[in-house]
Amino acid sequence: MAPISGDFKGIVPPVVTPFTENDEVDVESLERVVRFLLDGGVHGLFALGSTSETALLTDQQRATVIETIVTGAAGQVPVLAGVIDMSTARSIEHARVARQLGVDGLVLTAPYYVRPSAVEIQAHFQAIHEAVGLPILAYDIPFAVQTKLDRRLVLAMAVDGLIVGIKDSSGDEANFRALVAEARATLPSFATFTGSELVVDLALVAGASGCVPGLGNVDPAGYVRLYDLVGKGDLEGARLEQERLIRLFSIISAGSPERMGFSAAAFGGFKTALVLRGVIASNVMGRPLNRYNAEETAKVRTILEETGLL
Amino acid sequence: MAPISGDFKGIVPPVVTPFTENDEVDVESLERVVRFLLDGGVHGLFALGSTSETALLTDQQRATVIETIVTGAAGQVPVLAGVIDMSTARSIEHARVARQLGVDGLVLTAPYYVRPSAVEIQAHFQAIHEAVGLPILAYDIPFAVQTKLDRRLVLAMAVDGLIVGIKDSSGDEANFRALVAEARATLPSFATFTGSELVVDLALVAGASGCVPGLGNVDPAGYVRLYDLVGKGDLEGARLEQERLIRLFSIISAGSPERMGFSAAAFGGFKTALVLRGVIASNVMGRPLNRYNAEETAKVRTILEETGLL
Amino acid sequence: MAPISGDFKGIVPPVVTPFTENDEVDVESLERVVRFLLDGGVHGLFALGSTSETALLTDQQRATVIETIVTGAAGQVPVLAGVIDMSTARSIEHARVARQLGVDGLVLTAPYYVRPSAVEIQAHFQAIHEAVGLPILAYDIPFAVQTKLDRRLVLAMAVDGLIVGIKDSSGDEANFRALVAEARATLPSFATFTGSELVVDLALVAGASGCVPGLGNVDPAGYVRLYDLVGKGDLEGARLEQERLIRLFSIISAGSPERMGFSAAAFGGFKTALVLRGVIASNVMGRPLNRYNAEETAKVRTILEETGLL
Amino acid sequence: MAPISGDFKGIVPPVVTPFTENDEVDVESLERVVRFLLDGGVHGLFALGSTSETALLTDQQRATVIETIVTGAAGQVPVLAGVIDMSTARSIEHARVARQLGVDGLVLTAPYYVRPSAVEIQAHFQAIHEAVGLPILAYDIPFAVQTKLDRRLVLAMAVDGLIVGIKDSSGDEANFRALVAEARATLPSFATFTGSELVVDLALVAGASGCVPGLGNVDPAGYVRLYDLVGKGDLEGARLEQERLIRLFSIISAGSPERMGFSAAAFGGFKTALVLRGVIASNVMGRPLNRYNAEETAKVRTILEETGLL
Repeated sequence: MAPISGDFKGIVPPVVTPFTENDEVDVESLERVVRFLLDGGVHGLFALGSTSETALLTDQQRATVIETIVTGAAGQVPVLAGVIDMSTARSIEHARVARQLGVDGLVLTAPYYVRPSAVEIQAHFQAIHEAVGLPILAYDIPFAVQTKLDRRLVLAMAVDGLIVGIKDSSGDEANFRALVAEARATLPSFATFTGSELVVDLALVAGASGCVPGLGNVDPAGYVRLYDLVGKGDLEGARLEQERLIRLFSIISAGSPERMGFSAAAFGGFKTALVLRGVIASNVMGRPLNRYNAEETAKVRTILEETGLL
Repeated sequence: MAPISGDFKGIVPPVVTPFTENDEVDVESLERVVRFLLDGGVHGLFALGSTSETALLTDQQRATVIETIVTGAAGQVPVLAGVIDMSTARSIEHARVARQLGVDGLVLTAPYYVRPSAVEIQAHFQAIHEAVGLPILAYDIPFAVQTKLDRRLVLAMAVDGLIVGIKDSSGDEANFRALVAEARATLPSFATFTGSELVVDLALVAGASGCVPGLGNVDPAGYVRLYDLVGKGDLEGARLEQERLIRLFSIISAGSPERMGFSAAAFGGFKTALVLRGVIASNVMGRPLNRYNAEETAKVRTILEETGLL
Repeated sequence: MAPISGDFKGIVPPVVTPFTENDEVDVESLERVVRFLLDGGVHGLFALGSTSETALLTDQQRATVIETIVTGAAGQVPVLAGVIDMSTARSIEHARVARQLGVDGLVLTAPYYVRPSAVEIQAHFQAIHEAVGLPILAYDIPFAVQTKLDRRLVLAMAVDGLIVGIKDSSGDEANFRALVAEARATLPSFATFTGSELVVDLALVAGASGCVPGLGNVDPAGYVRLYDLVGKGDLEGARLEQERLIRLFSIISAGSPERMGFSAAAFGGFKTALVLRGVIASNVMGRPLNRYNAEETAKVRTILEETGLL
Repeated sequence: MAPISGDFKGIVPPVVTPFTENDEVDVESLERVVRFLLDGGVHGLFALGSTSETALLTDQQRATVIETIVTGAAGQVPVLAGVIDMSTARSIEHARVARQLGVDGLVLTAPYYVRPSAVEIQAHFQAIHEAVGLPILAYDIPFAVQTKLDRRLVLAMAVDGLIVGIKDSSGDEANFRALVAEARATLPSFATFTGSELVVDLALVAGASGCVPGLGNVDPAGYVRLYDLVGKGDLEGARLEQERLIRLFSIISAGSPERMGFSAAAFGGFKTALVLRGVIASNVMGRPLNRYNAEETAKVRTILEETGLL
C-alpha cells in the first residue's frame, strides 16, 4: 500500500470514466486512461471523483471503476477512491467496497441534498472514519454539494485525526491559501491539494502538496512537468507551462451552454480530447448528460493543436 | 390503483420516516403514522419525499418504507413514491422497485451533484418515463438539487406527456401562480401541488390542486380542514386555520442552528412533535443529522399546546 | 396630508420616470402618467421606487420627479417617496428634500454596497426616522440591496414605531404571508404591501393592505378592478382578472437578455407599453440601460392587444 | 501627473476614511494615514475605495477625502479615485470632481442596484471614459455590486481603450489568473491588481502588476516588503511575510457578527488597528455601521502584538 499522508503529494488526476454506447463502463478504454496517466508520470490516481461522473454511476459501475484502476495502478502509485454520496449510510457502503478492492485512501464530501450543519458534517466524517479506518481526504466542493467546508472545521477534523488531507475544489483560493499557511505552521503532515487546474504553480509556491486536476486526464505530462518546474525553482518556466494549460482548459468552453450544463461541458470536454488523442473509444457521457457533437469536437481539436497536443 | 392525474388533488403529506435507535426504519411507528394521516383525512400519501429523509436511506430502507406505506394505505388513497437520486440510472432503479411495490405514481427531481441543463433534465424525465411507465410528478426543489425547473420546461414536459403534475417546493410562489394560471388555461388535467405549508389557502384560491405539506405529518386534520374550508368558500375560516398552522410551523425554529442544519431542524421538528403526540417512538434522525434534545423538545411542546394539539 | 398608516391601503403603483432623448426627466410625460394612474383609480402614488429608475437619477432629477408627482396628485391620494441610497447620510438628504416637497411618507431600504447587519439596518431606520419624522415604510428588496429584511427585524421596528408598514418585493411570499399573519394578530395598523404583480389577489385574501405593482403603470384600472373584486368577495372574478394581468406581465420577457439586464427588461417593458398606450413620449431609459427596440416593441404590442389594452 | 498604465504597479492601498465623533471626515487623521502609507513605501494611493467607506460618504465628504489625499501625496505617487455609484450620471459627476481635484486615474465598478447586462456595463464605462478622459481601472467587486465583470468583457474594454487596468476583488483567483495570462500575452501594458490580501505573493508570481490591499493601511511596510521579496526572487521569504500578513488579517474576525456586517468587521478592524498604532484618532465608522468596542479592540491588539506591529 502506498503512503497517503505525510509524503503524499504531486499530481493526482481524478480519472475520467469512459462509457460504451450502451451506457456501461468501457473497461478497456479506462485501462488505457490509467496507462496514459502513469506514462505521463502522475503521482497518484483518484478514482470516482466528480470528473469521473461518479454521481451518475450505479454501485456496480463504481466497483468496476475502482477494480480497473487499482489493477492498472499495480501499486506503482497510490489510488484514492471517492465515496461521494448523500448520506452516512451510503458513504459507508461505498467505503467498504473500496477498501475491499484495495484502495489506499478515501475522498469524502459533506453530505448533500440535506444541508447539514458543521457539527453534522463532522459526525459524518467521524462515522466513515470509524467504520472503515482508511485514510480520508476531505473534499470541499460546494458547487456540487452546496455546503462549504469551513476552514476551522477542516483543521479541527485534522487535529482529531479524522482526515489526513484536503482536496479543495471550492474556488476560494484565498481561503485555501490561509488553510495551507495554517497547516504548514501546525500540521506539517496534512496534505493540501487544490482542485483548480489554473493555479497549480501558485498553489505549489504557497506550499500546497499538489493538485487534483481534471484537465490532467488530457495532459498528464504537462501537469507533471509543471510540478517538476516548481520543484526545481524554475518559476518562469512553470508560469509558461501553466499558461499553456490555461489555454488548454478553454476546451471546456467548446460545449454549447444551450445543450449542456457545467458538468457535461467540463467532463465531456476532457473525454472528447481523450478521444482525439486516441486514448478512449467514445466521448459518451453518463446519463442524462449530453456528449460533445461534431462541431464542438472540432473546436476541441483546434485547441489541442494550438497547445501542442495534436 | 387510485387516480393520479385529472382528479388527483388535496392534502398529500410527505410521510416522515421514523427510525429506531439502531438507525433502522421503525416500521411499527411508520405504520402508526400512516394510520394517523389516514384518520386525519388526507387525500394521498407521498412516500420518500425530502421530509422522509430519503437522501439518508439505503436502497433496502427505501423499499421497506414504500412497502409499509402501500400496505398501510390499503388502496384507500393513492401512494406516490419519490425516486430521488443523482442520476438517470439510479432513479430508474428506484422507480422499478417502487412500481413493483405497487405505488400509484412517482415524484422525480432534476438530477443533482452534476448541474444539468434544461435539455439534460428533460432527457432524464424522458428516460424514467420510458423505463417505468407510471405517472410522474415533477418535483421542483432547488434548495436540495440546486437547479430550478424552469416554467417553460415544466409545461413542455406536460405537453409531451412526460409528467402529469408538479410538486413545487421552490419557494417561488409567484412563478408557481403563473404556472397554475397557464395550466388552468391550457392543461386542465395537470396537477399542481404546492410544497409550502404557509400559503395553502392561497394556492387553492389560485386554483392549485393541493398541497404536500411536511407539517401535515403533525396536524393532518388541520390541513384537511383548511382544504375543506376553501372548498366551501369559507375564506375567513380558512385564513384563521392557516394562521394557526403558521404558528404551528414555528416548531422548526426550535432546533438550535448551532447543532442543526435546515433539514434536521425541519424534519426533526416534525418528528419531535409526532413523539409528543404519541404517534412515533423516537425522534432519532437519519445519520448524520442531529435529533432535538430535551430543551428543544420542550419548545416544541409549548407550541403544540398553544396551537391546540396537546 | 393623506393618511399613511391605519387606513393606508390599496393599489399604489411605483410611478415610472419618463426621460427625454437628452436624458432629462420628461416632466410632461410624467404628468400624463400621474393623470393616467389617478384616472385608473389608484389609491396612492409611490414616487422614486425601483421601477422609477431612482438608482439612475441625479439628486436634482429626484426632486423634479417628486415635485411633479406631488403637484399632479393634488392631495387626492397620498404620495410616498423612495429615499433609496447606500448610506444613512445620503438617505437623510433625500428624506429632507422629500419632506420639503410635501410627500406623505417615505419608503426606505436597507443600506447597500456595504452589507449591514440587522443591528446596523435598525440604526439606519432609527436615524432617518429621527431626522425627518415622516411615516416610513420598510422596503424589502434583496434583489437590489442584497440584504433580506428579517421578519423579526421588521416586526421589532414596527413595535418601536420606526416604521408604519412594509413593501415586500423579496419574492418570498411565504415569509410575507407569515408577516401579514403576525401583524394581523399583534399590530393591526401596520400596513402590508406586496410588490409582486402576480399574486395580488392572494395577498389580499391573506389580509395584506395592498400592492405596489410596477405593472400598475401599464394597467392601473386592471389592478384597481382586481382590488375591488377581492373586496367584494368575488374571488372567481378576481382570479380571472389576475390571470389576465399575469399574461400582461409577460411583456417584460420581450426584452432581449443579450442586450438587457433585468431592470431594463422590466421597467423598459412598462415604459414601452406606456408609449404604445399613448401616455408617454419615449421609452428611453436612464443611463446606461438599453431601451426596447422595434422588434421588442412589436412583441409588447401583441401582448397589449391580447390582454385588451390596445 | 504620475503614470497610470504601462509601468503602474506595486502596492496601492485603498485609503481608509477616518471620521470624527460628529460623523465628519477627520482630515488630520487622514493626513496622518497618507504620511504613514508613504513612509511605508507604497507605490500609489487609492482614494474612495470600498475600504474607504465611500458608499457611506456624502458628495462633499468625497471631495474632502480626495483633496486631502492628493495634497498629501504631493505628486510622489499616483492617486486613484473611486467613482463608485449606481448610475452613469452620478459616476460622471464624481469623476468630474475627481479630475478637477487632480487625481491621476479613476476606479469604476459596474452600476448596481439595477442589475445591468454586459452590454449596459460597457456603455457605462464608455460614457465615463468619454466624459472625463482620465485613465480608468475597472473594479470587479461582485460582493458589493452583485455583478461579476466577465473576463471577455474586461478584455474587450481593454482592447477598446476604455480601461487601462483592473482591480480584481471578485474572490475568483482562478479567473483572475487566466485574465493575467491573457493580458500578458496580448495586452502587455494592461495593469492587473488583485484586491485579495492573502495571495499577493502568488498574484505577483503569476505576473500581476500589484495589489490593492485594505490591510495595507495597517501594515504598508509589510506589503511593500512582500512586493520587494517577490521582485528579488526570494519566494521563501515572501511566503513567510505573506503568512504573517495572513495572521494579521484575522483582525477582521474580531468584530462580533451579532453586531456587525462584513464591512464594519473588515474596515472597522483596519481602523481599530490604526488607532492602536497611533495613526488615527478614532475608529468611528460611517453611519450606520458599528465600531469595534473595547472587547473587540483588545482582540485586535493581541493580533497586532503577535504579528510584530505593537
